[in-house]
Amino acid sequence: MSLDPVKLTADLIRCPSVTPFEGGALQLLEGVLGAAGFACTRVDRNGIPNLFARWGEKGAKTFGFNGHTDVVPVGDAAAWTHDPFGGEIHDGVLWGRGATDMKSGVAAFVAAAVDFVLQTPPEGAIVLTITGDEEGVGHDGTRALLDWMATEGEAMSVCLVGEPTCPNSMGEMMKIGRRGSMTFYIEAEGVQGHSAYPHRAKNPLHALVDLLHRMTANPLDNGTEHFDASTLQITTIDCGNPANNVIPAKARTTVNIRFNDSHSGASLTQWGEGLARVVEAETGVRLSIRTEISGESFLTPPGPFVELVARAVEAETGLKPELSTSGGTSDARFVKDHCPVLEFGLVGQTMHQVDERIEVAQISQLKAIYTRCLRDYFA
Amino acid sequence: MSLDPVKLTADLIRCPSVTPFEGGALQLLEGVLGAAGFACTRVDRNGIPNLFARWGEKGAKTFGFNGHTDVVPVGDAAAWTHDPFGGEIHDGVLWGRGATDMKSGVAAFVAAAVDFVLQTPPEGAIVLTITGDEEGVGHDGTRALLDWMATEGEAMSVCLVGEPTCPNSMGEMMKIGRRGSMTFYIEAEGVQGHSAYPHRAKNPLHALVDLLHRMTANPLDNGTEHFDASTLQITTIDCGNPANNVIPAKARTTVNIRFNDSHSGASLTQWGEGLARVVEAETGVRLSIRTEISGESFLTPPGPFVELVARAVEAETGLKPELSTSGGTSDARFVKDHCPVLEFGLVGQTMHQVDERIEVAQISQLKAIYTRCLRDYFA
Repeated sequence: MSLDPVKLTADLIRCPSVTPFEGGALQLLEGVLGAAGFACTRVDRNGIPNLFARWGEKGAKTFGFNGHTDVVPVGDAAAWTHDPFGGEIHDGVLWGRGATDMKSGVAAFVAAAVDFVLQTPPEGAIVLTITGDEEGVGHDGTRALLDWMATEGEAMSVCLVGEPTCPNSMGEMMKIGRRGSMTFYIEAEGVQGHSAYPHRAKNPLHALVDLLHRMTANPLDNGTEHFDASTLQITTIDCGNPANNVIPAKARTTVNIRFNDSHSGASLTQWGEGLARVVEAETGVRLSIRTEISGESFLTPPGPFVELVARAVEAETGLKPELSTSGGTSDARFVKDHCPVLEFGLVGQTMHQVDERIEVAQISQLKAIYTRCLRDYFA
Repeated sequence: MSLDPVKLTADLIRCPSVTPFEGGALQLLEGVLGAAGFACTRVDRNGIPNLFARWGEKGAKTFGFNGHTDVVPVGDAAAWTHDPFGGEIHDGVLWGRGATDMKSGVAAFVAAAVDFVLQTPPEGAIVLTITGDEEGVGHDGTRALLDWMATEGEAMSVCLVGEPTCPNSMGEMMKIGRRGSMTFYIEAEGVQGHSAYPHRAKNPLHALVDLLHRMTANPLDNGTEHFDASTLQITTIDCGNPANNVIPAKARTTVNIRFNDSHSGASLTQWGEGLARVVEAETGVRLSIRTEISGESFLTPPGPFVELVARAVEAETGLKPELSTSGGTSDARFVKDHCPVLEFGLVGQTMHQVDERIEVAQISQLKAIYTRCLRDYFA
């Protein structure tokens, strides 16, 4: 007997688990996993639902999976071809919110793990960490699971995150790291005045343009062995001064940086502060900087774990996956502080869109890849 | 018998002629001027009150004065030491809105003109152009008077504007020209996207920073014989994007330039457009520019008229007035298209402020200076 990951995905889609609502999704999984002998614990924190499940002994060699059952809102419900919470299959395609991101991924690793322990019980343990808040702020999602695990002496030896990672074809890309992400919130405070008498004023906008030009004039780097070049984007500048004969007193800007392993949140903060001090000295405008570091960059360098997953992908799809560090952030940024972490999942083209959908063949292929990973890991 | 310019200023202050209201101010002047033999015509346009007054024959050699009776609002009325519309005199100081800007100037030239034509009727004409909208948008103020004069065959051979021109001491400065003023309204339209994937977007803020850096990196000029250096001020940048993981589609900025006689509104427009085209080509962001030219720069170069006014100032105050082109704009920017125009008036320190006030001695001195200008001009 075997657990059908397509049916499980469809069942999960029918749970309306829009962040931060549980929607019955974790309950459903708890039932499936519990029946297969997994010890399940709900690790909810601040109203966010999370599920921890372990098969095997605590402290054993442990293969971990991580994923989330929460989904982004459906957007314009009327624009969907099929019910976003219907889990309908038409011509080999499964439709619904979460079909790619990532109820399919969760269903694939749950099905792989359940079949694996029932059919070939390994010498070791399998741990599943499944959160209900990856699409939201994420403070109490995977982080809460990892915090709880540390307290309880639970651990994963390695972890595979089931996020969609393939741009176009199943198997073409896996993620061996992610860039870091940080944001500068900069406020400039000068001295208000009349446009005709700029020598009596200090224009905060001129200071911001000077600072932002210094920040954007040259690339932060040219990329590293496993990473693309870091990128910096000004996401807003605001002043709100309606009078063209008035020099404003204040203005503010936000700058977001996606950085590779040649930087850290701290080194970039120091860099930005340094530039701001130069501009302050030149202009007399006060520049206050607050930074928010969403995640440091990380890398699980090519080695046994990377090779194990890459081989499994190639065996099932015929494609040698590119070892990429591109894209935004994922919960792998939390897991990497605990164990080597990789990401592999199916084609993410329709994620977050109206008419999110996936070929059912990809879900079965994904289960097969995850099964092969387990088999090879415990071999 | 002589017309007291201090009493006339106080009477004008008691007329609540806050832009664009007439408040009885022009009516009062029409009475005074009519009684002295001036032919008075109200040249109202679009609800804006204006007064034209001529003594002598149309077409004769004509000395002109220009001024305004409208005032800016009182602001916080409770903060005033004396009634802003009371026209009270305490210890030789006249208090009230318009005491410096510029009911005193209008009273001084009206008193000078009335006494002059009654006591020593000149061979020629005196024209007074007094508007009720200099502090507002100004579309239908002095411009309406000048348009009407052109239609009627009325003209001034020279014109003296009675705006306050002295920074600290009576007599220290006259204006022989003014810088021009223009504003760029720039909209940047790029392509929205995710901060993590900037290669798929076109950031309008990066284009604006690039453009504004080019505009501010070097001074527009180093000043000319009679003018300070031109100045450029960014007065706002706005985008309103609340999401630090989103590259916005649009942003806008406003740039105000005060320019000397080495530029024109047209040449600066061309300069800005040229820079925008370079940045467009480099960034792919569309930059749309609209310009508003409030006034071109102008100069009445040193010569007989300048010397006549400067000598009159020096004779009455003992100070040789600096020939300045500093400051904002005034209605002289309209007059200069019709005849040589200069500006001289009293100390403007409290203009537009709470507790606007003036030493009454300055008003009498100003009348004496204007009288001397008339005497010397018609000598």
